[in-house]
Amino acid sequence: MIQFADRMKMLKGSEIREFMALTAKPDIISFAGGMPAPELFPTEQIMEVARIVLEENGQEALQYGTTEGIPRLREQIAARMKAKNNISTDADHILMTSGSQEGLAFSAQVFLNKGDVVLLESPSYLGAINAFKTCEPNFIEIPTDSDGMLMDELESVLKSTENVKMIYVIPDFQNPSGKTWSLERRKQFMELVNQYEIPVIEDNPYGELRFEGEYLPALKSMDTKGLVVYLGTFSKILAPGFRLGWICAEEKILAKYNFIKQAYSLQAPTISMLIASRWMDMYDLDAHVEKIRVCYKKRKDIMLEIMRKELPDSCTFTDPEGGLFTWIELPEYVDTKELSMKCLEEKVAFVTGTGFYPNGGHKNTLRLNYSNMSEEKIKEGMMKLCRIIKESI
Amino acid sequence: MIQFADRMKMLKGSEIREFMALTAKPDIISFAGGMPAPELFPTEQIMEVARIVLEENGQEALQYGTTEGIPRLREQIAARMKAKNNISTDADHILMTSGSQEGLAFSAQVFLNKGDVVLLESPSYLGAINAFKTCEPNFIEIPTDSDGMLMDELESVLKSTENVKMIYVIPDFQNPSGKTWSLERRKQFMELVNQYEIPVIEDNPYGELRFEGEYLPALKSMDTKGLVVYLGTFSKILAPGFRLGWICAEEKILAKYNFIKQAYSLQAPTISMLIASRWMDMYDLDAHVEKIRVCYKKRKDIMLEIMRKELPDSCTFTDPEGGLFTWIELPEYVDTKELSMKCLEEKVAFVTGTGFYPNGGHKNTLRLNYSNMSEEKIKEGMMKLCRIIKESI
Repeated sequence: MIQFADRMKMLKGSEIREFMALTAKPDIISFAGGMPAPELFPTEQIMEVARIVLEENGQEALQYGTTEGIPRLREQIAARMKAKNNISTDADHILMTSGSQEGLAFSAQVFLNKGDVVLLESPSYLGAINAFKTCEPNFIEIPTDSDGMLMDELESVLKSTENVKMIYVIPDFQNPSGKTWSLERRKQFMELVNQYEIPVIEDNPYGELRFEGEYLPALKSMDTKGLVVYLGTFSKILAPGFRLGWICAEEKILAKYNFIKQAYSLQAPTISMLIASRWMDMYDLDAHVEKIRVCYKKRKDIMLEIMRKELPDSCTFTDPEGGLFTWIELPEYVDTKELSMKCLEEKVAFVTGTGFYPNGGHKNTLRLNYSNMSEEKIKEGMMKLCRIIKESI
Repeated sequence: MIQFADRMKMLKGSEIREFMALTAKPDIISFAGGMPAPELFPTEQIMEVARIVLEENGQEALQYGTTEGIPRLREQIAARMKAKNNISTDADHILMTSGSQEGLAFSAQVFLNKGDVVLLESPSYLGAINAFKTCEPNFIEIPTDSDGMLMDELESVLKSTENVKMIYVIPDFQNPSGKTWSLERRKQFMELVNQYEIPVIEDNPYGELRFEGEYLPALKSMDTKGLVVYLGTFSKILAPGFRLGWICAEEKILAKYNFIKQAYSLQAPTISMLIASRWMDMYDLDAHVEKIRVCYKKRKDIMLEIMRKELPDSCTFTDPEGGLFTWIELPEYVDTKELSMKCLEEKVAFVTGTGFYPNGGHKNTLRLNYSNMSEEKIKEGMMKLCRIIKESI
């Protein structure tokens, strides 16, 4: 009789990923995934760059490479982290991964024994929760307000809990809530972290996609003790099909991630790395990100306008300053699973909120993505969704 | 104080990967890695195919896709497994991975709790041992002869050992030993496995690279109880830079791997999958594999000819029927670590054998790769290596 490992009992398929086949159908209006707008991909440019890379460095592009990834790309990333996030780092402190998801799963591998405690925002990213579950930790959810994680709550947990091995946060345009941590909160957080010396995983896939207001400094930029592991990715600013993310951390920690990267997948795809690097040399990533920002802001505005007009007062929601998501809390008696079924009958999809809480509950919440649908579809889908919500209240 | 997870104590960097930077230097003759011959990559064809894929399916190529991978590629793989390995399967039983290394690490995730027992050939693939170590199992090495794993030894371990959760084998042109299991041994193995109902990980990265003799059926082709998880890869028959491997297993088991794939890296690189698939539609993989076979056989023959002539009788070695590696056992008093230092002084690199034994020892062994060096370099490097070996005996 085949026996599976204990961790498999904790794991199930992500609702987001299970929806992918369904929501790929052209007649479905999907607010479910977290996919970028494919019409914004610079496909023509990438075609040209792929030709140049394969013509000039074909053998390198198709061969194995080092675990950490090609030096030129890591230099470009380090320079960008300095320019955008005020993080002083260099190529030697960057490890390329096959998408940021690896950074999440590897963080669990590096820091967590079975039964260890992970602190995270309540709610937090479903994919991170699943990744961490492979190491069978306990989760303690720290409540948040509109400025981010609540420091009193965090401190009281840190004081009273043994075996806290890692704190996972998404300070910019959080997935799923759409919230952004204030500067003050970031400073307070780093003070506490420095005091307790707990490693922090700062996940920043959306930080560059700010619609308004000022860039806020990354936690990593305030990291004086080498406690912050910063996760970045090309998935939202260039293209997820390459599977390219990166980890930035101090030497001792990064060396552990390197061992895990070797054990799990040897290295990121060489051809993807060379194309992304050459594309950044030949084209203007800033200008490209600006295009994405303008497009997503417009889509977000349309979604929020309808929510403001159509949703009853008993519903609250986030008006995000950037990123890909907004989040609705309905009256407690509403079960968004039932809502989801009704919406699917009318060919509208979203993700229910429960999965974003590692300890369950919160059946009255849901996440909406606005980056992947046209303005027309957002209007049509949101009118339907808001009508169905009103009918259920 | 940052605390790392217990598993990190077991893990260190692979000697093979640590050598990569060193052995990439053009003046080093390296028998250390397991890299394919880059001059055989169909770079021009792949350049053409990349253009077509990005022109016709650019948005799909750069976007997220489903966890299991694109259907057309999984169909092609299923058809090939039928044709080459006599395995009856279909696209629904195949999950694409970011290289076969993921298949190894995920196998540990699916089957192993801390302290569980893994059985494997002695010696076995270093990268697999490292991948399994992330789940902190105990390893029991099963001795082998020139026909493969010894069945008496396997049976006695199965009889007397609790918590055997997985058996890992490489029946074709094994890494590192170069040995191939006989048909008879394969049959006996599957009988035993069926009796004890233990999952088997059949790793077959080199199976198509047979230089002589008849194809032997894969264990998976004799799997009547759905116990065999088969790992395949494009790394050795097309190009490793794509990071494309696959897992073939029965539904219940594959569903678990799918959850782990989601948690670890979401999906294999979309652009790699589309290029590999279109390349197989437009070009002849059989003809390409034949080219690789002819080239590697010649290199192997040159290496073996020098070993036969130059090595003292007290050394034994494998004459592999295919694959990428041969293996030398020296008299027990020789430490190949010292040998390796001497060789590096003369700019020749190989991997010492100890790392291929999860429980250590066997310091008198070494692995040689012949796929990545020109015939001239093989001659030059082997003459040096054999001289240094003779001097140490």
